[in-house]
Amino acid sequence: MNMDQMEYRIRDRIKEFLDEDIGYGDITSSTLIPEEQTAKGTLYFKEPGITSGLVEAATVFEILGCQVTAHSKDGEAVKEKQVLLSVNGHARALLMGERLALNIVGRMAGIATQTTKVVNSVKEKNHKTRVAATRKTLPGMREFDKRAVVHGGGDPHRFGLDDCVLIKDNHLELVPSVTEAIKRAKDGISFTKMVEIEVRSLEDAEEAAREGADIIMLDNIAAPEIKEWLGELDKKGLREGFIYEASGGITFENAANYAAAGVDIISMGALTHSVRSLDVKFEIEMVK
Amino acid sequence: MNMDQMEYRIRDRIKEFLDEDIGYGDITSSTLIPEEQTAKGTLYFKEPGITSGLVEAATVFEILGCQVTAHSKDGEAVKEKQVLLSVNGHARALLMGERLALNIVGRMAGIATQTTKVVNSVKEKNHKTRVAATRKTLPGMREFDKRAVVHGGGDPHRFGLDDCVLIKDNHLELVPSVTEAIKRAKDGISFTKMVEIEVRSLEDAEEAAREGADIIMLDNIAAPEIKEWLGELDKKGLREGFIYEASGGITFENAANYAAAGVDIISMGALTHSVRSLDVKFEIEMVK
Amino acid sequence: MNMDQMEYRIRDRIKEFLDEDIGYGDITSSTLIPEEQTAKGTLYFKEPGITSGLVEAATVFEILGCQVTAHSKDGEAVKEKQVLLSVNGHARALLMGERLALNIVGRMAGIATQTTKVVNSVKEKNHKTRVAATRKTLPGMREFDKRAVVHGGGDPHRFGLDDCVLIKDNHLELVPSVTEAIKRAKDGISFTKMVEIEVRSLEDAEEAAREGADIIMLDNIAAPEIKEWLGELDKKGLREGFIYEASGGITFENAANYAAAGVDIISMGALTHSVRSLDVKFEIEMVK
Amino acid sequence: MNMDQMEYRIRDRIKEFLDEDIGYGDITSSTLIPEEQTAKGTLYFKEPGITSGLVEAATVFEILGCQVTAHSKDGEAVKEKQVLLSVNGHARALLMGERLALNIVGRMAGIATQTTKVVNSVKEKNHKTRVAATRKTLPGMREFDKRAVVHGGGDPHRFGLDDCVLIKDNHLELVPSVTEAIKRAKDGISFTKMVEIEVRSLEDAEEAAREGADIIMLDNIAAPEIKEWLGELDKKGLREGFIYEASGGITFENAANYAAAGVDIISMGALTHSVRSLDVKFEIEMVK
Amino acid sequence: MNMDQMEYRIRDRIKEFLDEDIGYGDITSSTLIPEEQTAKGTLYFKEPGITSGLVEAATVFEILGCQVTAHSKDGEAVKEKQVLLSVNGHARALLMGERLALNIVGRMAGIATQTTKVVNSVKEKNHKTRVAATRKTLPGMREFDKRAVVHGGGDPHRFGLDDCVLIKDNHLELVPSVTEAIKRAKDGISFTKMVEIEVRSLEDAEEAAREGADIIMLDNIAAPEIKEWLGELDKKGLREGFIYEASGGITFENAANYAAAGVDIISMGALTHSVRSLDVKFEIEMVK
Amino acid sequence: MNMDQMEYRIRDRIKEFLDEDIGYGDITSSTLIPEEQTAKGTLYFKEPGITSGLVEAATVFEILGCQVTAHSKDGEAVKEKQVLLSVNGHARALLMGERLALNIVGRMAGIATQTTKVVNSVKEKNHKTRVAATRKTLPGMREFDKRAVVHGGGDPHRFGLDDCVLIKDNHLELVPSVTEAIKRAKDGISFTKMVEIEVRSLEDAEEAAREGADIIMLDNIAAPEIKEWLGELDKKGLREGFIYEASGGITFENAANYAAAGVDIISMGALTHSVRSLDVKFEIEMVK
Repeated sequence: MNMDQMEYRIRDRIKEFLDEDIGYGDITSSTLIPEEQTAKGTLYFKEPGITSGLVEAATVFEILGCQVTAHSKDGEAVKEKQVLLSVNGHARALLMGERLALNIVGRMAGIATQTTKVVNSVKEKNHKTRVAATRKTLPGMREFDKRAVVHGGGDPHRFGLDDCVLIKDNHLELVPSVTEAIKRAKDGISFTKMVEIEVRSLEDAEEAAREGADIIMLDNIAAPEIKEWLGELDKKGLREGFIYEASGGITFENAANYAAAGVDIISMGALTHSVRSLDVKFEIEMVK
Repeated sequence: MNMDQMEYRIRDRIKEFLDEDIGYGDITSSTLIPEEQTAKGTLYFKEPGITSGLVEAATVFEILGCQVTAHSKDGEAVKEKQVLLSVNGHARALLMGERLALNIVGRMAGIATQTTKVVNSVKEKNHKTRVAATRKTLPGMREFDKRAVVHGGGDPHRFGLDDCVLIKDNHLELVPSVTEAIKRAKDGISFTKMVEIEVRSLEDAEEAAREGADIIMLDNIAAPEIKEWLGELDKKGLREGFIYEASGGITFENAANYAAAGVDIISMGALTHSVRSLDVKFEIEMVK
Repeated sequence: MNMDQMEYRIRDRIKEFLDEDIGYGDITSSTLIPEEQTAKGTLYFKEPGITSGLVEAATVFEILGCQVTAHSKDGEAVKEKQVLLSVNGHARALLMGERLALNIVGRMAGIATQTTKVVNSVKEKNHKTRVAATRKTLPGMREFDKRAVVHGGGDPHRFGLDDCVLIKDNHLELVPSVTEAIKRAKDGISFTKMVEIEVRSLEDAEEAAREGADIIMLDNIAAPEIKEWLGELDKKGLREGFIYEASGGITFENAANYAAAGVDIISMGALTHSVRSLDVKFEIEMVK
Repeated sequence: MNMDQMEYRIRDRIKEFLDEDIGYGDITSSTLIPEEQTAKGTLYFKEPGITSGLVEAATVFEILGCQVTAHSKDGEAVKEKQVLLSVNGHARALLMGERLALNIVGRMAGIATQTTKVVNSVKEKNHKTRVAATRKTLPGMREFDKRAVVHGGGDPHRFGLDDCVLIKDNHLELVPSVTEAIKRAKDGISFTKMVEIEVRSLEDAEEAAREGADIIMLDNIAAPEIKEWLGELDKKGLREGFIYEASGGITFENAANYAAAGVDIISMGALTHSVRSLDVKFEIEMVK
Repeated sequence: MNMDQMEYRIRDRIKEFLDEDIGYGDITSSTLIPEEQTAKGTLYFKEPGITSGLVEAATVFEILGCQVTAHSKDGEAVKEKQVLLSVNGHARALLMGERLALNIVGRMAGIATQTTKVVNSVKEKNHKTRVAATRKTLPGMREFDKRAVVHGGGDPHRFGLDDCVLIKDNHLELVPSVTEAIKRAKDGISFTKMVEIEVRSLEDAEEAAREGADIIMLDNIAAPEIKEWLGELDKKGLREGFIYEASGGITFENAANYAAAGVDIISMGALTHSVRSLDVKFEIEMVK
Repeated sequence: MNMDQMEYRIRDRIKEFLDEDIGYGDITSSTLIPEEQTAKGTLYFKEPGITSGLVEAATVFEILGCQVTAHSKDGEAVKEKQVLLSVNGHARALLMGERLALNIVGRMAGIATQTTKVVNSVKEKNHKTRVAATRKTLPGMREFDKRAVVHGGGDPHRFGLDDCVLIKDNHLELVPSVTEAIKRAKDGISFTKMVEIEVRSLEDAEEAAREGADIIMLDNIAAPEIKEWLGELDKKGLREGFIYEASGGITFENAANYAAAGVDIISMGALTHSVRSLDVKFEIEMVK
């Protein structure tokens, strides 16, 4: 998984985040700490994890006029207390940027670390199966949440409603048939877009495949049943050339079962909607 | 706890969130669903909880041209499946707004519901103790995260670094004494701002109180020790007229112990930094 | 082709365009025309064409406080002088919005009308062949330019570099082979994205198809040669299940030849980079 | 013609244009091209032309972290294949900026080149006559379109409705007379603004001049008639001290006739509303 | 003097001003005042004055959801305590908008009232002389400051550096002569722009007039001297057809002398750079 | 008084101010002054004063590509003609930035200088009394106006309605009693916020103090009466531990009387709402 870093673009967002936290100024530091006081900060995890958000954290301190050295790249597995970033600058600047850097790295590394755990458990059962996120990201944070999933070895899935077609239950209520739905989609969208459809029966899966859906989501189907379905589809020549995605009711614990059942993709809202932040520390040392 | 709703201000943020999710358009709905098709949606929780984010969700659908009726107000305890909002409008609009509404209500109600649980456990032990959030909110979401804490009966604490003075370890490293730190702060900031200081010993707590700190944070001190300290401070006439806040190492489980120990405020980063989203559902029914 | 109209989103852009044209105010109208003077405006084409930009023009006048009635929908073939929009409001408002409405409809209808001409000539030869735009749109106008292409019956193609993979010459210079390039792309991007590759020889086309490229662009290949290549590919079972796109050197005049040659897609930068604006008129009649 | 370059201001616009094209990232280049790969790009025209947009193109690549050297200045006549800009930087950055640079230079140089052609044909007949643009520019592109006209030797004319007064037909419908219209304008606007009026008869031109209009636009009057009118006006002492502008129905072909007829200004919407983009190339060479 | 009101444009600015004052919410009103409490507000002056900023104040309250009725129009002379606006809405909304409404009306009416005083004193001596503002407005407030000048009967003068040419001392230092400066300006700018030049001697004024400057600013010249100069210029036929502007060292007290000296324009930075706010009151009455 | 400088944040605002003044470009300088011409500028006061706005002025020129050297820091007392900033850069850039730099320094230094005068007169009578601003700042300029007050030795007071509670007359109309109002406020807001209340009688002051208000504003009470009241309050043990603020009807002339009366804070709207700009000069010298 790869995404361009686009520091040029992140910068404006990070500045907005800084504005949110700093407001009219850090009244504590600017009152207590002499303007010319310099300091050195080091960022590390207090538990092992996968790095993510380092570019964002570096940008925080650069905006505040500090020099930042990176000792790791986003997406690496690192140990407890391993130094990831060192920051040199005015003590006031380090104190102003600290909380934001921790908040963003905490979340992103939390997502990346959890993603890697699932990806590993899944790969053990089926090395071809990918773990994907969903659109259950936090408002305003999609880009960062998706990047974190990618750093953890996951697939970002759709970035928005304009990304690929995904025909759901609600859509099918208004269309005569799966066949008609796929036909309308293929006629109606650009040839550069894939068509995905959510199905809940083997018959619908078959119909979708015959009609040329690119991706078929098996929604809320138990792993053993999925295995059986994929076998049936294979017999009918409808397994190869299609992407089968399991979704709904998948937890960090049972994800591997779906991999074992043979699906291509396992998508999990939990990767981003209920995140445990990683425990991250920014240690500041005054430079005398 | 009370905060003005300020729908006028939220509107622009919600529009940004919509832009993030919709991009150039919902290519699925606009292809499959006839433009004139109307629908009705109802938003409810799939588990009991405290409402939060209803104003935000309503705004999502209003921006998209729908009519919204609220059946609850933010901050209420509601039951599973109790209808909170009804939305009437174009089917396409409902489908376009669904995910964002769920993402934002899921997080905010998750925060509010968890906050209420802690608040209740704390109030049982000490009805005067308040539960407060910290600045460990998600970047770009501070306003929403803090509102959710308030809806759950919590105290938002500082909104940013310009809100009140909070003297921490890092600051004290550079100042000769607690006394000097408080003096500098009082001289340096507006008289409209409070001065809070983080201490780790009873001596420092005493010194801070004598010097006129408004709020004294007992950082990472175990509940029994806090009880003892407050007793000592009381003997010296330094308990009344000061706000004592316990912080650090406080979990949903042990929070009540700190209340029992007699502190005024218990602040917990966990309220906002590691949120389990509430399970929220938006049911769409086509209007024939 | 279908795209959601998203008036809610267009509004802000249209307001920016108005700001650009009006600046601190229309010093002529506000000096000469009494404030309370009302007027009626009608928008029509001075030549037959395909409508596009009507939603945008309506938004111009609505922002300025006018009532707008639409007598046509974007994407329709209309006659010379056929009334498309009627606008009622303050005379000053009509005069302030006139130029912007004409500029935007002129360009969008110009694109739509030209697109329809090519689409028709192409469909005559091969009703399955689609005509697509490229990224040769004007800066800041991509959304509008692409909408106009869709209104004209064309395919918008990629909206940006994040839309689908398109491997070009420059990329291939740095990768050992077509096979390796497609492999890297498939491993590196989300499963929701298509992989397109630009080739200049039959061998490369074959290799791309065997490796599972979704779309194969035949770049700067003459129509007769394309016909021959597609025949060869068909013999090898590499025609069906792939999208073949002709691009480069295609003009309004020779486009149909490529359709006759059997390609699925003909993409033309000319649709948007060298547009003749349609001749549009906004007639204002003062209401006494 | 001269306008300050104002790179500081252009930068934000160019960044918006980049965002439009790049979205969440260039998924092709970031997948296929190693991060550390560097490259060199050269920008040139594939046909002779007048340069315009070089500052904008340079800004594109500078935002993306490249080093840019300019070998020409906007407004120069250059030959086919003459190198105009060289760009050094990351290969990914060059590939990300390429399309935008070409789109903007293509349009601006197209406008400049066409403007120069008309200006030259006009100067041959009357070296005092200026060629001017109109407000028929593309929404959001006025600044760039006008700059291109200036680079081509043209006059930008009004930048917006707040720039100078231009009394048109629609205004005159509501005012008793030309005299009254000019009087109202002169009373109603700042003394720093000029008053221009559109007339369609010699009598109105006379009345306008006598009333002190600064600029008199002869709207849709044929060149021979204009010559005659100017003769009449001269006899009455109303030629000197006034600016006469021909507008309406003027094409690239017949513009020189109006110059021969003696007008001061020839204004043409065609300069910006129906632009043929110049054929521009950005050649990328990987640096091993 | 007349300027279009452009409420559509002011709205965004007013919202920014509200954000500045309200921040995360009016914590006093939202705590003390019941949500459903309604109120009525009336805005009036505590001293006689010229109205200005009423549109802005009305917009403040409309953004906050109130109904506003205007009993006066900007630019009118009103008495002490005369009701100018009535506002009905939620008590919280009235309290939130009060300060901003007062701040903006206070400044704008202060400017308008002072302007009217000077205009009247000037008109008494010479009814043709106009009083004009300068670019000495407050950052971010130019539009509002200039509008207020216009409401007071003054001339806004240049809105910015792109408005008309104004050749000053600093420019002349680098150009061989006044003649050359005017020539360069006339060649270099659009024919729609006027050329103004600042002179400090009668000789320079003459040279400027002969060279065709549109406006000649007599900088820091005493009124009696100006009278003499204008006499000399008149004798040489250089008075009519030119605009003579006095500037520099002009106070509210001595302005009329310059009018008596016969200049066309008197420009005064004092109109906007050192403003005494008018005493404005917003009286809120709770609706039981 | 101390506030962090936050250049990173000011930059965007200054750019907006530049856009306001420059628009599409400085048509005078770019026409008359050769592009490569360099110049040196020095900024100084034409009268003694307190510096403020130097960071802002420096930012103006830095955005325009100049090098700036500061010879003073904001908040210093400086003499007439003492050089405060030197600026080196393109002559055009200096000319473009001049007006904005003067406008902003003029206002801020005007505020700072006036503030210092009052602060000094107040300190003479009572060295503990602080002089504070109010929310009577100019729309969009609050941050700058407050900074200037701080540079002059004043207290900024509330930055907005979310800063501390201030219970006014209008609020009290709707609440049964002072006691109830303070109780509601303390229950309803965060413990990090202070509660201030405006009173007009000694009884109310007493009630407010007993109920635990942090700050008690004596609104429109004459200095001798205030002295008496404070005596009474002291006798009842309600003087220490409370902040008493005098407000309303305080002028530059009578402020010291309130200090003599013994209040802690004197707040004056006049500090920011009716500012006399300091006379500031930017001298430009061309570099041959």
